[in-house]
Amino acid sequence: MASLEDALAVIRRGTEEIIQESELIERLKSGRPLRIKAGFDPTAPDLHLGHTVLINKLRQFQELGHEVMFLIGDFTGMIGDPTGKSVTRPPLSREDVLRNAASYKEQVFKILDPAKTRVVFNSEWMDKIGAAEMIKLAGQYTVARMLERDDFSKRFKGEQPIAIHEFLYPLVQGYDSVALEADVELGGTDQKFNLLMGRTLQKSYGQAPQTCITLPILEGLDGVQKMSKSLGNYIGVSGAPGEMYRKVLSIPDQLVWRYFELLSFLSLEEVAALRAQAEKAGNPAEAKKLLAAELITRFHDAAAAEAAPRSAGNQIGLGEIPENVPEVDVEVTEGDALPIASVLRLAGLVKNSSAAKDVLGRGAVFVDGQQISADFVLTRGEVVVVQAGKKQIARVRLK
Amino acid sequence: MASLEDALAVIRRGTEEIIQESELIERLKSGRPLRIKAGFDPTAPDLHLGHTVLINKLRQFQELGHEVMFLIGDFTGMIGDPTGKSVTRPPLSREDVLRNAASYKEQVFKILDPAKTRVVFNSEWMDKIGAAEMIKLAGQYTVARMLERDDFSKRFKGEQPIAIHEFLYPLVQGYDSVALEADVELGGTDQKFNLLMGRTLQKSYGQAPQTCITLPILEGLDGVQKMSKSLGNYIGVSGAPGEMYRKVLSIPDQLVWRYFELLSFLSLEEVAALRAQAEKAGNPAEAKKLLAAELITRFHDAAAAEAAPRSAGNQIGLGEIPENVPEVDVEVTEGDALPIASVLRLAGLVKNSSAAKDVLGRGAVFVDGQQISADFVLTRGEVVVVQAGKKQIARVRLK
Repeated sequence: MASLEDALAVIRRGTEEIIQESELIERLKSGRPLRIKAGFDPTAPDLHLGHTVLINKLRQFQELGHEVMFLIGDFTGMIGDPTGKSVTRPPLSREDVLRNAASYKEQVFKILDPAKTRVVFNSEWMDKIGAAEMIKLAGQYTVARMLERDDFSKRFKGEQPIAIHEFLYPLVQGYDSVALEADVELGGTDQKFNLLMGRTLQKSYGQAPQTCITLPILEGLDGVQKMSKSLGNYIGVSGAPGEMYRKVLSIPDQLVWRYFELLSFLSLEEVAALRAQAEKAGNPAEAKKLLAAELITRFHDAAAAEAAPRSAGNQIGLGEIPENVPEVDVEVTEGDALPIASVLRLAGLVKNSSAAKDVLGRGAVFVDGQQISADFVLTRGEVVVVQAGKKQIARVRLK
Repeated sequence: MASLEDALAVIRRGTEEIIQESELIERLKSGRPLRIKAGFDPTAPDLHLGHTVLINKLRQFQELGHEVMFLIGDFTGMIGDPTGKSVTRPPLSREDVLRNAASYKEQVFKILDPAKTRVVFNSEWMDKIGAAEMIKLAGQYTVARMLERDDFSKRFKGEQPIAIHEFLYPLVQGYDSVALEADVELGGTDQKFNLLMGRTLQKSYGQAPQTCITLPILEGLDGVQKMSKSLGNYIGVSGAPGEMYRKVLSIPDQLVWRYFELLSFLSLEEVAALRAQAEKAGNPAEAKKLLAAELITRFHDAAAAEAAPRSAGNQIGLGEIPENVPEVDVEVTEGDALPIASVLRLAGLVKNSSAAKDVLGRGAVFVDGQQISADFVLTRGEVVVVQAGKKQIARVRLK
């Protein structure tokens, strides 16, 4: 059992804000396991290290003896886009939700302890709430205060439409904290408004308000922009070991210690020692290698971490993406999508359909470093690195 | 069966706007009975002639062969005030709603044909709608457009709080039109925004949009302010015949023809003839008497209409309020309310408690012209005319 001071040091590590820390201290003093809530999108998860900043903090709470409530916000996801304007946001089915939940678990249980994690879906309580309760909920907050949220404020001033249901989503997120009786909610700094909504609503419903902890948005490999798949500056948690190794070694030197603070499980004392070594050496190359080994061990295993420097340095392993990949355009002539076998053939990665079938049968086809199966489909507009066996690779743009 | 032109003339009589008349004409041409919707507050109704402007229009639609849907908005009434700020708006119980509905029927069936009137409650469908459907509904409208509603706009600019659930109420009213598949909705000019919401939502839900008909707000006896109980310039539909007679005769001359247009069931041709007579005579005194007789017959009976001039002119009938009523202040010393027996005694209308009990037992106590029973209670701030038997009368102010 950690002392209060030790526990607070762990909790404070890397956080942006703790609202209110004094309340958190009172709760920690109670000695009971706290209910730590974090909400996740119900859409298909494909986590990168940026997402794990939050999950690592959940892990720290678990190690301090608290209970993590991993909340999948499927209720709103199953509504889809009620304005009917976004064809890219169709409602999720129950099957979609369960499949995505399974995928979340596979990824996050490399960090979290399954025994101390409750995966919950907010449809459990939101499906039972009637329109009347929804109206009561909406009565707990004012239009003017909702419009203070950054994105709403910008859109309102810019005369961009805000559909009224968008005002209801933060209320639902806040109500989740009521339903779960959360003691603490974690989120990125961009979630601060929604986290505070939880406090407001808990007070309205006669509960003690949760402590809100915001975590920073991790910068990507470019050291400037936030890590994001669409910007290409990310390290995916399912990336191949060699790729992960190469990427970690490429992070800008000034970012190394921030990555250690937010991504490593080494104690801050151990990190300080590494930093001293790096300053002596004149560069953090050894620290980067250690971080790469830690992350590869976490998301693959120790053997992969051992092998990664070789596969990254010498040759392309299956699913590892080299620096200079030739680019190929492939035209989608019918409909919006192409099966992977056709993509392989049209991109010139295999000679013919039977060669495509063969390489797919061997499990040797990778898309963006992920092994895929023969029923995989790519859609128009996608730009992906497709690999067929160890030698054939291309960055394919579907037009 | 009225010709299309005749029907339109009846429908147009006294209306402010018909949106869109061309669509209404198409519907009338179809020959089927149209579904005519009008919504009413679920709180205790105490109708005056101002309210009957709308009900008269419903009657005209009935006479043209259409079906009236008399909607009692009990769903929102049963929610009460979710902000918890208004103690004067407690949630209505199912019993309250049914009692108020019975009182509505008693009053409006003096105008409407019960056989062609469907009394409906929006809780029928709103209680079945989940939070998800409520969110979809809210997705059909934008914050900016909602803020265009007059009262919201003023409060927003004036930095008066608007709770978010207030945005949901017009959506519920609009959804009622969807649930009822209304062809036409009637409302006061102050309801125009909400009526148009029905059009918007019906389109979203794949229905033909209803025609919205707005009716003017009737001026009261002062000829300037809108008729309202709190302004004291009203004629209640349950008022005593003598009182009704006296009040109709007191309406300003310039208002007589507007009252005929909106309140009389005489045809416009008959009204024109009366007007010509009045011009010849140099005053509309005879027309006023005819209007009084028509209204008293409608809300009481022909005998009462016959007797009214006498009771109004010569003496005070029970429940009839004379011109000059002495004023008395009564102090509420405990709590906020006083039983009627105490009011009678403190106002000097009876000598003692037993005299109060006696006059109440005889059913001879009237408050603002309405017979009341022994359990009647008055609250601080009220100013009412209290009558005990034929001789004792006072305008009582509870302080």
